[in-house]
Amino acid sequence: MSRPASEVNYRGRYSEPVPTSNLVNDEEDFPEFEPFEDTPGPRGWPMADSSSLAVQSVDMCQQINKPNHFTTAYDTNNLVIRRGQEFVVRLIFNRPLTQGDDFQVEFLIGANPSPNKGSLVAVAFGARSGGPWLGHILEMQGQSVLVGITPAANAIVGKFRTYVAIAAGGGMQRTRRDATTDMYLLFNAWCPNDAAFYPDAAGRMEYVLNDLGVIFQGSAKAMSQRNWIFGQFERGILDACIYILDSSRMPIYNRGDVIKMVRKASAMMNSQDDNGVCVGNWSDDYSMGKPPTSWTGSVKILQQYANTGVPVCFAQCWVFAGVLNTFLRCLGIPARVITNFNSAHDNTGNLKTELIFKPDGTPDRRNTRDSIWNYHCWNEVFIVRPDLPPGLGGWQVVDATPQETSDGLYRCGPSPVSAIRSGVLCHPYDCGFVFAEVNSDVIYCKRDRYGTLSPFRVDKTYVGEIICTKAIGSPAPEFVTQNYKPREGSAEDRATMAQAEKYGCERDHSELHDSELSVTIHTPKVRLSDDVNLAVDFSNQSDAPKTVKAHLAGSVIFYTGVTANHFKDEDFNVTVPASHTERVMLKIKAQEYMPHLGSQLTLHFIVTGQAEEQSVTAIEVIDLETPTLTMTVSGLPQVQQEMFVTVSFTNPFNFPLHNVELAMEGAGLMNCRTRFYSVIESLATVSWKESLIPRLEGHRCIVAVLDSSDLRQVRGSVDVVISKA
Amino acid sequence: MSRPASEVNYRGRYSEPVPTSNLVNDEEDFPEFEPFEDTPGPRGWPMADSSSLAVQSVDMCQQINKPNHFTTAYDTNNLVIRRGQEFVVRLIFNRPLTQGDDFQVEFLIGANPSPNKGSLVAVAFGARSGGPWLGHILEMQGQSVLVGITPAANAIVGKFRTYVAIAAGGGMQRTRRDATTDMYLLFNAWCPNDAAFYPDAAGRMEYVLNDLGVIFQGSAKAMSQRNWIFGQFERGILDACIYILDSSRMPIYNRGDVIKMVRKASAMMNSQDDNGVCVGNWSDDYSMGKPPTSWTGSVKILQQYANTGVPVCFAQCWVFAGVLNTFLRCLGIPARVITNFNSAHDNTGNLKTELIFKPDGTPDRRNTRDSIWNYHCWNEVFIVRPDLPPGLGGWQVVDATPQETSDGLYRCGPSPVSAIRSGVLCHPYDCGFVFAEVNSDVIYCKRDRYGTLSPFRVDKTYVGEIICTKAIGSPAPEFVTQNYKPREGSAEDRATMAQAEKYGCERDHSELHDSELSVTIHTPKVRLSDDVNLAVDFSNQSDAPKTVKAHLAGSVIFYTGVTANHFKDEDFNVTVPASHTERVMLKIKAQEYMPHLGSQLTLHFIVTGQAEEQSVTAIEVIDLETPTLTMTVSGLPQVQQEMFVTVSFTNPFNFPLHNVELAMEGAGLMNCRTRFYSVIESLATVSWKESLIPRLEGHRCIVAVLDSSDLRQVRGSVDVVISKA
Repeated sequence: MSRPASEVNYRGRYSEPVPTSNLVNDEEDFPEFEPFEDTPGPRGWPMADSSSLAVQSVDMCQQINKPNHFTTAYDTNNLVIRRGQEFVVRLIFNRPLTQGDDFQVEFLIGANPSPNKGSLVAVAFGARSGGPWLGHILEMQGQSVLVGITPAANAIVGKFRTYVAIAAGGGMQRTRRDATTDMYLLFNAWCPNDAAFYPDAAGRMEYVLNDLGVIFQGSAKAMSQRNWIFGQFERGILDACIYILDSSRMPIYNRGDVIKMVRKASAMMNSQDDNGVCVGNWSDDYSMGKPPTSWTGSVKILQQYANTGVPVCFAQCWVFAGVLNTFLRCLGIPARVITNFNSAHDNTGNLKTELIFKPDGTPDRRNTRDSIWNYHCWNEVFIVRPDLPPGLGGWQVVDATPQETSDGLYRCGPSPVSAIRSGVLCHPYDCGFVFAEVNSDVIYCKRDRYGTLSPFRVDKTYVGEIICTKAIGSPAPEFVTQNYKPREGSAEDRATMAQAEKYGCERDHSELHDSELSVTIHTPKVRLSDDVNLAVDFSNQSDAPKTVKAHLAGSVIFYTGVTANHFKDEDFNVTVPASHTERVMLKIKAQEYMPHLGSQLTLHFIVTGQAEEQSVTAIEVIDLETPTLTMTVSGLPQVQQEMFVTVSFTNPFNFPLHNVELAMEGAGLMNCRTRFYSVIESLATVSWKESLIPRLEGHRCIVAVLDSSDLRQVRGSVDVVISKA
Repeated sequence: MSRPASEVNYRGRYSEPVPTSNLVNDEEDFPEFEPFEDTPGPRGWPMADSSSLAVQSVDMCQQINKPNHFTTAYDTNNLVIRRGQEFVVRLIFNRPLTQGDDFQVEFLIGANPSPNKGSLVAVAFGARSGGPWLGHILEMQGQSVLVGITPAANAIVGKFRTYVAIAAGGGMQRTRRDATTDMYLLFNAWCPNDAAFYPDAAGRMEYVLNDLGVIFQGSAKAMSQRNWIFGQFERGILDACIYILDSSRMPIYNRGDVIKMVRKASAMMNSQDDNGVCVGNWSDDYSMGKPPTSWTGSVKILQQYANTGVPVCFAQCWVFAGVLNTFLRCLGIPARVITNFNSAHDNTGNLKTELIFKPDGTPDRRNTRDSIWNYHCWNEVFIVRPDLPPGLGGWQVVDATPQETSDGLYRCGPSPVSAIRSGVLCHPYDCGFVFAEVNSDVIYCKRDRYGTLSPFRVDKTYVGEIICTKAIGSPAPEFVTQNYKPREGSAEDRATMAQAEKYGCERDHSELHDSELSVTIHTPKVRLSDDVNLAVDFSNQSDAPKTVKAHLAGSVIFYTGVTANHFKDEDFNVTVPASHTERVMLKIKAQEYMPHLGSQLTLHFIVTGQAEEQSVTAIEVIDLETPTLTMTVSGLPQVQQEMFVTVSFTNPFNFPLHNVELAMEGAGLMNCRTRFYSVIESLATVSWKESLIPRLEGHRCIVAVLDSSDLRQVRGSVDVVISKA
C-alpha cells in the first residue's frame, strides 16, 4: 500500500504508522520462524527436532460455526463469526500433544498488528491461557485437537488472518499465511456483552438477518411503499463493507467501537468529503448515471463501488438509507430504515421553518429559504451508548444523506431517539439537527414592501407528522412517531420543547389571533395522466359574510419541496356567508401538468386567500400514482433448483415510453438483471421471463423497477417461499 | 463566483444556494430602484420628484466608533465594530427630514442575503423601528442626521455591505454600492449578551487585545519560553481570517454562532481535510518550506495563505496554536495558548499509554505504539455553552494540531475545561480525547517471548504534569493544571476518574507490588555542545543488598517523544547495599550526541535495571539550551517617528553555521523582515540594524529568530514602550 504524501511529513509523529486497512502485504506478518528475544537458559535453547510439535492443517469448521453464529447466509468461502461467542477450530498436528507442548492460535488484522491495540491476538491454552480472547481445548483425538475460542465482545470487527504458532527450538514456529483460514469477525446482536446486542429474537431476525426491506415514501396523507433489496449476504457485499472502511482510512484500532463505526458509515455512504459510496443528485438530470428511482436495492451499488473505487451515480435519501442499512446489517449491527413525513430542512439550527408570502398573499419563492421535504429517510441502529448518561442507549438516528451541514460535514448521528424525544440535545451526535427535522414549526410569514417579515400563521403539527418503519416480520408500517416526540400538546411535549429551548433551539413565540377565516383542500388519490379535482373549503367563523380574493398556484415539486416547474396561477373570488363553509371545486387538467413533470411525480398546490386584513393559506401535496408491474413465478421453489420469474407491463398511457430499462433482483435468488426497450408504444405490453436458481431458503422476494425518461417509479414485486434442497 | 460541480446536482435540494462567502458580485445586491411588490393605492404610487428625499453621503464615523469598540488598532481603512454595542453613522441628505420621510439603513453579508437568516438586516427609524438591530436617531442638524445602530448580540460575524434606502415613488431608492462603507462586525467580549463575553477588563486586554504572546515549551523540569507575535491587528489579518472562513465554505448563516466558528477554526488551521492554513511536518526535512522553528509569529503565515490560497509549509503544535490564537483574537473571541507538559497521544481512546520493554529490560521501540509528547500546545477560548447543561461554559479547549483522529477528522473542541476536570465526558466536543491527553497513566509493560504484555510499573502522575499559559499582563507562566484536574490522589480526583470510567474511558487496574528497588536520574541544565552528566540513583529499600544489571540508552527525540536517532547503548552493573541509595555518574560526551541532532535539540535517556525478578526504569528528557540573540533599540520611541533595532549574534561553537536566516518582526512596529547569511564562522559575530516607524503606541516587543541547517531555535526579543504621536 502506498502512503499518502502527507504521511511522509509525519516521521516524527508516530512510532509506527496507524493501520487503516484490513489488507496487508503477505510479507508483512511474522516470519515463519521468530527467535525469542529473551536470554536462553544456561544450556541454551533446546533444538527443534523431528519429535517437535508441528501443525499439519487448520480447519475453521465452517459447518459447525456458521449456523451457531447465524452467518450461513453469507455467500463467501471464508468463515464468518460474531464476536463475544465461541467458535471452534480443528488443529491437526504431526503427533498427539504431550506434556510441555506449547502452542497458540494467533489472529491478526491490518498492518503492524499490536497486542495492546487488539489487532494482534494470541490465544493460548492451558497454563498460559487468559488473554482477551478465551481459548480452551474441547477435544483431543490423536493428532486432532478441537479448540474453542471466544473473541472479546469488544474485539475489532473486520477480516482477521489466522496463524498457529508453536514454541520450539528457541523461537516460535508458525504456519504459513493461508487465505482460506482468514476469518470475518462481526458485531453480535446475540451477545449481551456486545454494544450491538439486541434483546429480542424476532427483532434480531428482522434488524440483522432480514435482507429485504420496505421503504415508505409519498406523502403523509398517501403513503406508498417501495421494496428494497438490502442483500447484505450476497456475494462480495461483506468485502465491499470492509473495503468502504479501508478506503475511509479509518484506523483499524477504532473498528471495535460500534459508535465510531456507525458514525463513519454515515459519512462514507455519501461521496461528499470522502469519496464515499453514493453521489447525491436532486437535479432531474441523471444522464451521467442511473436515476435514483431506478435501483432495486443496495447490492449493485456496493459491488460497483468496491470494484471501481469510484462513487456511484446517483442517489437520493432512500438510496442512501437503503445502502447504509445493508452496510450495518452486514456487519451485524441491528438497523432499520425510517421515513419522516414532512421533514424540516432548516439550515440555521432553530425550530422555525419559514414560508414567505408576498404582500398580495401569493407565495414568495425567491425569498423562501427553508424547505420541508415531503418525506426524508434515515436509519436507526440499536446500540449501547457507554459514552452517555444512562437511558440514552437503544435506537439511534444515523443519516447518510448529505444534509446542509451537520457539524460542518456530511454525516449525522448516532443520535439517541430517546434524547430527541425528551429534548435533551446536549450530547453527541447531532441531536439538535434531528430534533429540528421532526419538531420544527412552520411559520407563514408575509414580507412587506420593505422586506420585513411578519408571521401570520404558525403550524406546529405539520412537520414530522408521521414517522414510520417496516414492522417486524411484515411489510406493514410500524409507526414510531411516539418514539420521537410526545403527543402534541401534552404536558410531556411542553417539557420537551422547554428542554430543547434551554439548549439553544430557538422557537417562534409570535402571538397570533385565531383567524376567523380558514381554508382547507381535499383531494382523492390521483393517477398519473388523470385530471386533478381539488375541493377547496373556505370556512368563515365570524358573524359577517366575507369576500375572499383567492389564488391557486400549482407546481411540480421535487420530494424535497423545491419547485421543479411552476405551471398554474389562477385568481378567483369566493363569498362565504357568516358561520358557513363554502366549497370551491378547482379542476386541473392532465394536459396542464403533464408537460411539466420531468422525472418528478409530485404536484404541489397552494391556495391563498385575502379577506380584509386576514390571510389564509392551505397547501396540498399530491403524489401521482403510477401503474405497477405484474410479476409471477413458476417452477419448483427449492434451493438449487431452476425456477422462473416473469415480469410484464402494459403502457396504459396515450403516449409511448422511450429508453425503458427494466431491472429485477432477488436476494438469495438472483442477482440484478436488466433489460432495455427503446420504446413501448401506447397500450403495448412487454413481458420478460428469466431463469433463476435459489441459493437461500425461506420467504424471499423478487423486486422489479421500470425506468424510462418519460415515466419513473413503476415498480412490482413477487413473493416466493423456497424450501430446503 | 463559480459553483463547485457537486452543487449542480442539487437544483432540487435548495430553493437558493446557501451562501458560504463574504464576497459577492457587486451586481448581486439590490437594484438601485426596487419597486414595491404590493398593490398601489387607488391613486397609484406618488411620483418621485425633486422634493423627494435622497442621500448625499454616508459617513461610518470611524473616529467615534473605533475607540468605543476597542478596534482602533486594526490596520484597515474600513470600520471595525463589535456586535451588541451601538455604533453611529452620519447620513447627509439633500434636505432636512420632514414628516413622512421613510428611510432605512441596510446591512448585507454574503450572496442571496435574507432577513430571516440574519444576512440582510434593515434598520428602520421611528414608526417602523424594531428589527433585530435597533436603530434610533441621535441628532438632526439640517441635512445631517446622526443615527445610532445596535447590531444584535448574536449577529453574523464578518464583512457587511451598507446601503441606505428611501421609500419613494413606488419603491425603494438605494445608495450605490460603496466599498468604503463596508463594515467588519466582530464578536464582543465587552457585551454581556454576546456568547464571547469575558467578564473582566484585564482579561479582555490580554485575551482579546494583546497582540504579543508567550508560548511555553521544553520539558516539565526545564520550561523554556518563546515569544510569539499574534499580530491580529496587522494589515490584512482580519481579511485573512474572513478568507479562511470563506474558503472553508462555512455557511454565512452559521457565522454568528461562536461554537461553530471555533470548531471550524480548529479544522481550518491545519491543511488536512480542507486545504487549511498550515501544513504539519514532523519529519526533520523542511526543505520544501520554512522550518516550524523559524517563524516569529502568525502574521506572515496568514498573509501568505490569504495571498496564495495554498497551505503554508510548515507547522508544529505551537505554530498551529499561535495562528489559531491570532484568528480567534482577531475576530474578538477571548483566547489563549496552553502548553500541556507530557501530553499523552493515545490513539484508542483509553487512559493507558503503554511503553513496552523487551524481555531483557531494554526499550522495545518497535512494539511501542503510544507516544508522550514532551509538550503539546493547544488553545482555550472563553465562551458560553448554551448547548450544554449549566456549568460548562467558560474556558474551552480547541486544538488545531492534526491529531491521530478525533471523531475521524483533524479538529478538536470546543471542549469545556470544567468537563475535563470533573470527568463528565458525555458532551460535545472531544472531551474524552482531551481528558486522555492530560490524565493517561503511563504503563511500563514487559513483552514476553510470546508477545504477551505484562505491566510492571504504572506512573499516574507523569502525563499532564504541568499545564500553563501566559499570565495576564506578564510574560510569566500561569499554572492552570488545577483547572484541568483535581490534585492527584484527592477525593475529587478519585470521583473524576470514576466518572470518566463510567463514560467508557478504560484505565489500568493492574495490581502491582511496590518495588523494593527504584531508580531516578538527575541532571543539571545542559547547553548545546556541552557534555551531559547524568546522576543515576539506585535505591534499595529491601533488607538485602541487590546487584543490578543496568542499561543506559540514549537517543535524540522529536518533541513528540518519537526517536529521531539512537546514539548510545551502554551496559553497567551496580551493587546497592540494603536500605541504601547508590549513585552512578554517567558521562555522555558532546561528540557522542552532536552528530545525531539534526534539527532536534532534545535528548532522551532511559536507564533500565534488572535485579532478580525486579525491573526498574527511569526516563530523562533533556532540552539542550541554545545561545540567544542580543537585541537593542535606539531612537525616539514614538508613533510615526523613525527608530532603529539592532540584532546581533556570536557563534559560540567550534563549527561554522551555514545557510543562516535571521528574521525579526514587531506587531504595530514593523512587519517581518529577514536577512540571509550563507555562513557564520566559529566565534564570528553578525549584527543587523533595521529602521522602523511605530504604528501603535504602548508596550510593544520585537521578536527575532535565527535558523540555520546546523542550529535552530536561537531566539531573542526586545521590549519597547511607544508613546503617542
